[in-house]
Amino acid sequence: MSVTRVVVVGADAAGMSAAHQALRTARRTGRELAITVLDRGRHTSYSACGIPYWMAGDVDGGDDLVARTAAQHREAGIDLRLGTEVVAADLEGRTVTTAGGESLPYDELVVATGAPAIVPDWALRPDGTPHPMVGPVKTLDDGAAWLQRLEEAGDGAHVVVVGAGYIGVEVTEAALRRGLGVTLLTRGRGLALLEEDMSERVAIGLCDAGAEVVLGVEVTGLQLDGDRVCGVTWEGGSREADLVVLAIGVRPATGFLAGSGIELTEDGALRPDAHGRVADHVWAAGDCCEVRRRLDDRWVFRPLGTHANKHGRALGDSLAGGDLAFPGVVDTSITRFAAEGVHLEIARTGLGHDEAVAAGHDPVTLVTEGSTASGYMPEADPIALWVMADRRTRRLLGVQVVGGRGAGKRIDAAAAVLWHDGTVDDLAWMDLAYAPPFATAWDVLQVAARRVAERL
Amino acid sequence: MSVTRVVVVGADAAGMSAAHQALRTARRTGRELAITVLDRGRHTSYSACGIPYWMAGDVDGGDDLVARTAAQHREAGIDLRLGTEVVAADLEGRTVTTAGGESLPYDELVVATGAPAIVPDWALRPDGTPHPMVGPVKTLDDGAAWLQRLEEAGDGAHVVVVGAGYIGVEVTEAALRRGLGVTLLTRGRGLALLEEDMSERVAIGLCDAGAEVVLGVEVTGLQLDGDRVCGVTWEGGSREADLVVLAIGVRPATGFLAGSGIELTEDGALRPDAHGRVADHVWAAGDCCEVRRRLDDRWVFRPLGTHANKHGRALGDSLAGGDLAFPGVVDTSITRFAAEGVHLEIARTGLGHDEAVAAGHDPVTLVTEGSTASGYMPEADPIALWVMADRRTRRLLGVQVVGGRGAGKRIDAAAAVLWHDGTVDDLAWMDLAYAPPFATAWDVLQVAARRVAERL
Repeated sequence: MSVTRVVVVGADAAGMSAAHQALRTARRTGRELAITVLDRGRHTSYSACGIPYWMAGDVDGGDDLVARTAAQHREAGIDLRLGTEVVAADLEGRTVTTAGGESLPYDELVVATGAPAIVPDWALRPDGTPHPMVGPVKTLDDGAAWLQRLEEAGDGAHVVVVGAGYIGVEVTEAALRRGLGVTLLTRGRGLALLEEDMSERVAIGLCDAGAEVVLGVEVTGLQLDGDRVCGVTWEGGSREADLVVLAIGVRPATGFLAGSGIELTEDGALRPDAHGRVADHVWAAGDCCEVRRRLDDRWVFRPLGTHANKHGRALGDSLAGGDLAFPGVVDTSITRFAAEGVHLEIARTGLGHDEAVAAGHDPVTLVTEGSTASGYMPEADPIALWVMADRRTRRLLGVQVVGGRGAGKRIDAAAAVLWHDGTVDDLAWMDLAYAPPFATAWDVLQVAARRVAERL
Repeated sequence: MSVTRVVVVGADAAGMSAAHQALRTARRTGRELAITVLDRGRHTSYSACGIPYWMAGDVDGGDDLVARTAAQHREAGIDLRLGTEVVAADLEGRTVTTAGGESLPYDELVVATGAPAIVPDWALRPDGTPHPMVGPVKTLDDGAAWLQRLEEAGDGAHVVVVGAGYIGVEVTEAALRRGLGVTLLTRGRGLALLEEDMSERVAIGLCDAGAEVVLGVEVTGLQLDGDRVCGVTWEGGSREADLVVLAIGVRPATGFLAGSGIELTEDGALRPDAHGRVADHVWAAGDCCEVRRRLDDRWVFRPLGTHANKHGRALGDSLAGGDLAFPGVVDTSITRFAAEGVHLEIARTGLGHDEAVAAGHDPVTLVTEGSTASGYMPEADPIALWVMADRRTRRLLGVQVVGGRGAGKRIDAAAAVLWHDGTVDDLAWMDLAYAPPFATAWDVLQVAARRVAERL
């Protein structure tokens, strides 16, 4: 039987999940695969999400963030080539070209190139490289650079974090826990992906822990003292800074597909189907892709490790003759902010208010405050829940949570109801676990759902 | 308009939820209700589940466990009569008779008498009262008695806990945290409501914390030194004891309905419908009732506060002309064991293996071990999950969890899938929240489901 040559571009969550699952499935389907994985970086299968905790001191070193080493991948029979950037793809001729000029033929191409951090022009020096005390938080090399910068800057340093997505919040935590001063700047009105009321609760928590939060400003430049960064500027304002964290966002690394005939979104993202297919003999998964949001059947860009792992696995299985499918998302995410005695767990699932309106719903929303445990227990922490349901169909549309210990993962029960197109009544009346250290007799999630149900 | 006379027997979760919801709904439906609540005890609306934590020292006093006081109920317009036991009901004549000989007429009767703890004969003195250092953990009076007994027994005392249900485990925690010696005795092969593998993990945790666990023994007597308890005995064995906790179970308080024509189960339980109806003009909810388990459409006796609250609310609404319904259970429950450096969260939902077979399923079960958080995080605690699915339909049938911090409430996501008759694939692939402090990239619940899915 002939060998199928699979070339995977990108050696992180999606690419390596695909490669390993393809090998597993091939053993079952009797196919023979020769898998080559190319990555321009030096690391494989690492947790980018863990880098803020490395910066905070929770994690000893970058190696701890590596789920599987290059050696482990190679032992599994994968031809892994690091430091190898792919610069072009010829879909007709079925080859990819590396920066070194090598041309690699493939039978099946897997695009799993991820999404590097956006580095805005104002962060660059005239020679095109970023200023030494300025950088994003995405790769293990970024992490190592940050450890060194934090060391160099010393105890009295002030960190400016640009961008209030999850990474921005997590890096703020890290810097506060290291005893540094922190200013979080965002051009938005609050934390990305949260409704205003929930976002405000997070902002208050950040301030309570000693961070400065400035909303509605778009950084446009650095202040320099010679070659040394000493601040950031925006229209009508500035803030001193010894270190500047770029947490503005990421952008799919799909430049090498330009002109290949593969369709990309305006932002350069791919839109593979549930099996990872984007075109004949071309597959994709992970952060270089958008994912399908089941609730409104829209494509959304949610570069999260959990989606990359799942979609990669489905892709690998399908590529080798299986039929695993990535069934899309309900837009669940979570983070934590814990510093200086403040502990906030922050999570969301489903649509936001405006998205619900755009999808034709008649949304009713309500914020409910309660407790993570029975009020008389030492475990009881405050929690606030935003719940949204459709007035006509009573369908649950979205839930957001900000609260103390035990608050965050409550979102999973709501995500499960969304997954099954359940109603706010399902959430209110279903059988969730109760005991005093964990919940009130009506779990606060159910109180919140019930209150919305009463208003429909 | 005529006033409907409602007599509620029992002033705890179900009865008072029913009474208050009936008043709320009546305002909407325009009905006029005169609600009288009778209870033989001295307390209302208290958390029996909180008593072990009062014993442990987490809760300052019994008053903290009272959600609403008698005065608060009366302010809401409820005629609450404590210390008033109902001894008979005449459904034809629509009256109940109190121990004091009073006859109260009603238009609608609500039975919410709960389920007092079982006190076996061997625990009683010849005069029919329990031995002073022996008692159950159910009422606030029980709690107060235990605080006094623990005080009297002093630091070196040894506690024997009879029964390994949730109360037995929670009281074991309380005694260990007070520095006492504890032996937990159970006639079963492990912890009630858990599969053997999960139960063993709990037993190991109890032992690691210093408790002695003896399985498969049925206590038959007390050892006495004069009037003082000094041990318990069973066939072929005995154990010294200064204090004996009876955590054997509870039994519906429905004796007053004997001969009334109301149908009771062998164990004395009522089987109200989703609105709480058991007969014309007779309603019931709470611990004196069985609940309908949706998964196999069977009645089960699960005397839990969360069911009592929900069913009571649906009852009250329906009684006053509303249509809220208690939609049954999927058999979710949770507890914790935390003492001497051991922290175990213990939860279950769905069917057990034998129940699944009895319901005609072809169950596949598997235990998966993993981590509550990303392995490199300080929050990462071990967790084990038992997952069961049907081989033919792939339906999820049951999940059980034993693990560290953050393990227990994970059961809610599984409960939500069961609620919606979802498959093990739904659980494996749905969109649960991931960030390093909370989960691995595939949440361990999803890893466990995936592993079962692969074996179907």
